[in-house]
Amino acid sequence: MSNNTNMVPESYPMNGGDGSNSYTKNSYFQRAGTNAMKAIIDDVIAEKLDVEKQISSSKSTLRIADLGCSVGPNTFIAMQNIIDAVQQKYQSHGFASHMPEFQVFFNDHTSSDFNTLFASLPPERPYFATGVPGSFHGRLFPDFSLDFVHSSFALQWLSKVPEELLNKNSAAWNKGRVHYASAPDEVAQAYTAQFAKDITTFLDGRAKELVVGGLMVLIMPGIPNGIPHSSSATGLMFDFLGHCLMDMAKEGLISEVQVDSFNLPIYVASPKEMTLLVERNGCFSIERMEITQPWARVDDLSGQACTMHLRAGMEGIISKHFGIEIIDELFDRYCKKHGEIIGLLESKLNEGNQLFIVLKRI
Amino acid sequence: MSNNTNMVPESYPMNGGDGSNSYTKNSYFQRAGTNAMKAIIDDVIAEKLDVEKQISSSKSTLRIADLGCSVGPNTFIAMQNIIDAVQQKYQSHGFASHMPEFQVFFNDHTSSDFNTLFASLPPERPYFATGVPGSFHGRLFPDFSLDFVHSSFALQWLSKVPEELLNKNSAAWNKGRVHYASAPDEVAQAYTAQFAKDITTFLDGRAKELVVGGLMVLIMPGIPNGIPHSSSATGLMFDFLGHCLMDMAKEGLISEVQVDSFNLPIYVASPKEMTLLVERNGCFSIERMEITQPWARVDDLSGQACTMHLRAGMEGIISKHFGIEIIDELFDRYCKKHGEIIGLLESKLNEGNQLFIVLKRI
Repeated sequence: MSNNTNMVPESYPMNGGDGSNSYTKNSYFQRAGTNAMKAIIDDVIAEKLDVEKQISSSKSTLRIADLGCSVGPNTFIAMQNIIDAVQQKYQSHGFASHMPEFQVFFNDHTSSDFNTLFASLPPERPYFATGVPGSFHGRLFPDFSLDFVHSSFALQWLSKVPEELLNKNSAAWNKGRVHYASAPDEVAQAYTAQFAKDITTFLDGRAKELVVGGLMVLIMPGIPNGIPHSSSATGLMFDFLGHCLMDMAKEGLISEVQVDSFNLPIYVASPKEMTLLVERNGCFSIERMEITQPWARVDDLSGQACTMHLRAGMEGIISKHFGIEIIDELFDRYCKKHGEIIGLLESKLNEGNQLFIVLKRI
Repeated sequence: MSNNTNMVPESYPMNGGDGSNSYTKNSYFQRAGTNAMKAIIDDVIAEKLDVEKQISSSKSTLRIADLGCSVGPNTFIAMQNIIDAVQQKYQSHGFASHMPEFQVFFNDHTSSDFNTLFASLPPERPYFATGVPGSFHGRLFPDFSLDFVHSSFALQWLSKVPEELLNKNSAAWNKGRVHYASAPDEVAQAYTAQFAKDITTFLDGRAKELVVGGLMVLIMPGIPNGIPHSSSATGLMFDFLGHCLMDMAKEGLISEVQVDSFNLPIYVASPKEMTLLVERNGCFSIERMEITQPWARVDDLSGQACTMHLRAGMEGIISKHFGIEIIDELFDRYCKKHGEIIGLLESKLNEGNQLFIVLKRI
């Protein structure tokens, strides 16, 4: 079904392929998030998945979607974790003979590298694999066709930069910055409003696609309630990226106007904000909503590792705006100056920077 | 679900991208087949699709798979034709208010260019699109999860070259030829046996995946009953390709040993053979089984057009064996000599060269 033509979301795929700058090779921070979630997801499925209902419906297939899956390997680990937990639940409840088949739908933007995703599918996977191209801000699946939805480190991407930020005469014109973290309130408000619109559309779509009783696990960058935007770890990194760009502008390598008109369409939400949006939608019960600290377990917060991760995720959007030729220079600067923020970054990460949500379709 | 590891089918994707040698730009012969089938598929759906059963099952989604879809645009036309016909049937039977949603599964080998396929999906399509990587000689979908299967110009590809052909001491060693069309009986028999094995696996898989009452439309190169292999249009073209390769071997551009060990894993079946294989499987009724002449409607049988089509389909497999550097030379020769066979080719095409099959899961 085509997306609503009034809203064609922009897409900034992670770096494809499996080279040294690829997302495949530079997504172990996100993987730390996925791994830390395994125990929690095991619990969620053990407690919340309604096996009796699944069996009584005489459906022999359990359909799982990973929305914004990128190009692996994290998505394969996450899907395997979910299936392991479901199989475990069937077995422990004496329903081993009713074990469903699994069909997994890997979703990401049409411009994502599905060829790499498909080529790297685990050969011995316990599921039928399919790819679904398109934005999760639109509809992707038929009504009531999914039993389980998972989305990890994808919902923070806005469908577009808020329009006000592109208007020089607006109070939300974001001069000299690339994010809202330490920007005036008007900038942050524009981001907040765009995020609310996007999550509303996301929840509307999933409410139609999930069966009643179906579960949805959402993992995304998060900020504890009551903490200012400028104090989040993500905000800190993006502010710092903005400083590096402004340094380059001052040296004449890029223009300040280019920096002024560039904004990262990424939002870091609090539990309170998400709770409000879910309640407003009205189709889901909130089974879990918490801030976790998975990155506190990542050993390597070196400049090299942080820079490679940031580059794998941001190279596409930055080179689209500034040109590919500035990328090496920008991330070299970021890497060299990383020591200036490492201490602060570590303390932020320990405060919790990930939002973990479990919803049930009611 | 992973394929049986005893049989990992080889894959020879059509030329990807959308450049001048791409399958996308050079598949209008196959498209003529698809278009000529529109009227017949309309009839098949009008007559054979059990709309009442679909409605009474209270399933709101009709799931369609195109197996061996390549990279478009033919697959998009075929899927649209099927959906148009289904919608027409619902409307004419007064079931417009029960119109299902459509989910289309585009399948081809994992190495096929899904990125191009996804990027060229029609923006206003009336279906949810998904891609399914893997060989249709293995399982691709959960049990009873499809309502309609379509496959056009894909089943002629064998899962591998018959093993006997690779043994110098076998009577099926295919010296100086690249196909079985005018080869000794032992060669043709080895091809026939491999084709029977492959179709058996194909039918076994689809019998599990289709719902009872589900339809399967298969379109493939075909040969009328009782006609010798050497007399098919496809056989004629492949024999001619073999002659061009042998000419190059005689001039020392490639070695004869290379030609001897190269065989196109493509089979052209008769209605009688397919009938036997379907009956042996036992899970399908044969609703249609006929030889048609769609290419007789193709205006442009020029050397240029024929060569480009052959190249779009065969460049991958030929360059894998002989090296990419011989491709231009080979197809230049083919194009220049095409006049020698054009008359014969036209008469063969008029005799019928396409097999059209409709099966119903019973």
